[in-house]
Amino acid sequence: MAIIVQKFGGTSVADAAKIRRAAERAIRMVKEGYQVVVVASARGKQTDQLVSDALELNPNPPKREMDQLLSTGEQQTVSLMAMALDAMGHDAISFTGGQIRMLTDSVHTNARIKSIGAERIHKQLDKGKIVIVAGFQGVDEYENITTLGRGGSDTTAVALAAALGAEECEIYTDVDGIYTTDPRMFKDAAKIDQISYDEMLELASLGAGVIHTRAVGFGKKYDVKMHIRSSSEETIGTIITHEVPQMEGVVVTGATVQKDMAKIGLVGVDNVPGNAAKIFACLANAKVVVNDIVQTEVSAEKANLSFMIGASDLAAAQEAVETIKNDVNCERIFVREDIAEISVVGVGMRTHYGVADKMFSALAKAKVNIDSITTSEIRISCIVDKDQAKEALEAVCIAFELDKPSEERSQAS
Amino acid sequence: MAIIVQKFGGTSVADAAKIRRAAERAIRMVKEGYQVVVVASARGKQTDQLVSDALELNPNPPKREMDQLLSTGEQQTVSLMAMALDAMGHDAISFTGGQIRMLTDSVHTNARIKSIGAERIHKQLDKGKIVIVAGFQGVDEYENITTLGRGGSDTTAVALAAALGAEECEIYTDVDGIYTTDPRMFKDAAKIDQISYDEMLELASLGAGVIHTRAVGFGKKYDVKMHIRSSSEETIGTIITHEVPQMEGVVVTGATVQKDMAKIGLVGVDNVPGNAAKIFACLANAKVVVNDIVQTEVSAEKANLSFMIGASDLAAAQEAVETIKNDVNCERIFVREDIAEISVVGVGMRTHYGVADKMFSALAKAKVNIDSITTSEIRISCIVDKDQAKEALEAVCIAFELDKPSEERSQAS
Repeated sequence: MAIIVQKFGGTSVADAAKIRRAAERAIRMVKEGYQVVVVASARGKQTDQLVSDALELNPNPPKREMDQLLSTGEQQTVSLMAMALDAMGHDAISFTGGQIRMLTDSVHTNARIKSIGAERIHKQLDKGKIVIVAGFQGVDEYENITTLGRGGSDTTAVALAAALGAEECEIYTDVDGIYTTDPRMFKDAAKIDQISYDEMLELASLGAGVIHTRAVGFGKKYDVKMHIRSSSEETIGTIITHEVPQMEGVVVTGATVQKDMAKIGLVGVDNVPGNAAKIFACLANAKVVVNDIVQTEVSAEKANLSFMIGASDLAAAQEAVETIKNDVNCERIFVREDIAEISVVGVGMRTHYGVADKMFSALAKAKVNIDSITTSEIRISCIVDKDQAKEALEAVCIAFELDKPSEERSQAS
Repeated sequence: MAIIVQKFGGTSVADAAKIRRAAERAIRMVKEGYQVVVVASARGKQTDQLVSDALELNPNPPKREMDQLLSTGEQQTVSLMAMALDAMGHDAISFTGGQIRMLTDSVHTNARIKSIGAERIHKQLDKGKIVIVAGFQGVDEYENITTLGRGGSDTTAVALAAALGAEECEIYTDVDGIYTTDPRMFKDAAKIDQISYDEMLELASLGAGVIHTRAVGFGKKYDVKMHIRSSSEETIGTIITHEVPQMEGVVVTGATVQKDMAKIGLVGVDNVPGNAAKIFACLANAKVVVNDIVQTEVSAEKANLSFMIGASDLAAAQEAVETIKNDVNCERIFVREDIAEISVVGVGMRTHYGVADKMFSALAKAKVNIDSITTSEIRISCIVDKDQAKEALEAVCIAFELDKPSEERSQAS
């Protein structure tokens, strides 16, 4: 009998009516002949409430105790959902992370899954029960409760789907799928029917709040078919899967804009081996995540070097490069905060020419100046002025017809 | 190093300020040289909220899921208290029932403790930590979460004190001890300094809401010294312990009145062997708890039989005796609901004469009619009219000087 894993986020189980609706979804799949495992998050604002209770007592609470506290939110949801299913006449049983032997390392508040005991779940499924598992949590080898960090319930669901050999992992949420771009920035954004793990990982910001990249990475590693869909509507959402042949027909799957970033440049650094390494070791020590490094030779003696960082890391990064400035004989450091990054992503780029050209033309036509460009195998990113970000994104979306479903686009876009 | 177990009930940990105050209590005992284990209940009205959340989804929730749900209340308290202790600069660690191997049977919502793993607690105490254990909960052999039923956190505390060989089990509560009688009925009631387990069990109604009889029974079985005291004041409360010589000097330790009861009488039952057994088997089948059975012979052929029951069991009990009425040839059944039971309790009765006489005289002087009398080794109970209950209790309290601390009473009372 095929197994389906259904994951319901906090907004999808926020009150009794929503818990009942989620329970109905589970029963429907049982009637379609599936064995159903439900993964649930804490109800609505429960986690926020617990965090505020904790901070009232301790501004820097011990992480082990934080996990002990926060894990109760999911435990409450799963027992309540089992009760709801029972009231609807369906046998159900709820489990905490510990009860299904969701073993993790001991990194409290951000633990990694080591193994999952699938037997107990299979046994209950075979008895005809719907099994409801608390997301986000596990236990370490000493039975200390751990939590998986941001997006933890998604990760639980995908990991369970992998461990159980499930046919699909449904992620129910308050939106009806992943869109070609952020609809707040480009109102005609179209829903994506199908997307590859790699594209989804590159388009992380489109999934922000919907699906966590860590869960997508897990899905990719274990080839779990994921389905992002609405908990309130009956629509088909977005399938995240490995690459299938028809995906290549679509050149660009989605476009993103990231505005909360900054660029740091080091001008006139001594062009000798080891200087770049020194600079980035220094940034790594300051725990700054660096992207899009560009180094250009100015002369035989001097080079310019620039990189992108998250805006929140700017102060730490500036401090770090100031300490190394003299060591590498840097003439001048510049910082740009007034920038945004526009990216287009698509596995089709691997076999199609002219994507970069089309993107640059669209930006030129919209009179958007490009500061710098970086590319990967399935992504092209341009840094532009922040106050041109919206028109830049629109120009790119229209050029690649991201306002239309993929099957309605012209061959070349 | 001696160990102290401190139990804080729901009202004593209801908010952040109260959790901090409880934490200060624990630290103070550490400074006095003790290793401290804290047992905590769910905060204030948390359990009521969870019960109402459950009933909204299912009027008759499965008991296993109820335990899974309710146990989160205590888990939250213990992690929050560990955070509070950490903020005060003291190492602490919280444990759920499962984490300390509080093993129970599988009777959900009313489980019995089978064993406790003391090693993990000793290990943490020896590291200098305050150990905080979730009351009320355990796990069965399959890691299903169980709860211990009413008074469960008291039972957890006393059981832990026994398992750890603790010097004392402090029960912090919102009253400052056990009183000679209910102060709402007799405003001059005096606090009892010391009371034996047996007396406390007989005076159960005086401890109602303060300490559960099941915990007292546990304390008696394992000889755990219990100390009922106020969480908000610095006073010494009531010590519950095994009998000590000076207790015999006090003839009557306390007096109670019970008003929520009823009496059923079977008049003119055939006086043949086996009839009483038939009647009480019938009541046991109806799950009615019966007290104070009195049988009197009317003639060689006929006997009268009466017994007391809780008022809430009256309908079930009446139905049960009606079914057996003809079988035992009973002439008439009568029911009295307008009654109350006044009791005096004291281990000193074993060696003192005249207690019954003094009680009956006091009631007679107050013009209270006695319907019937039952006695045990350390208790005398009289059934009186319900509307005379208050004056009956007052008369008895004054006769035995229950408005004075025991050391100030005259020798004979």
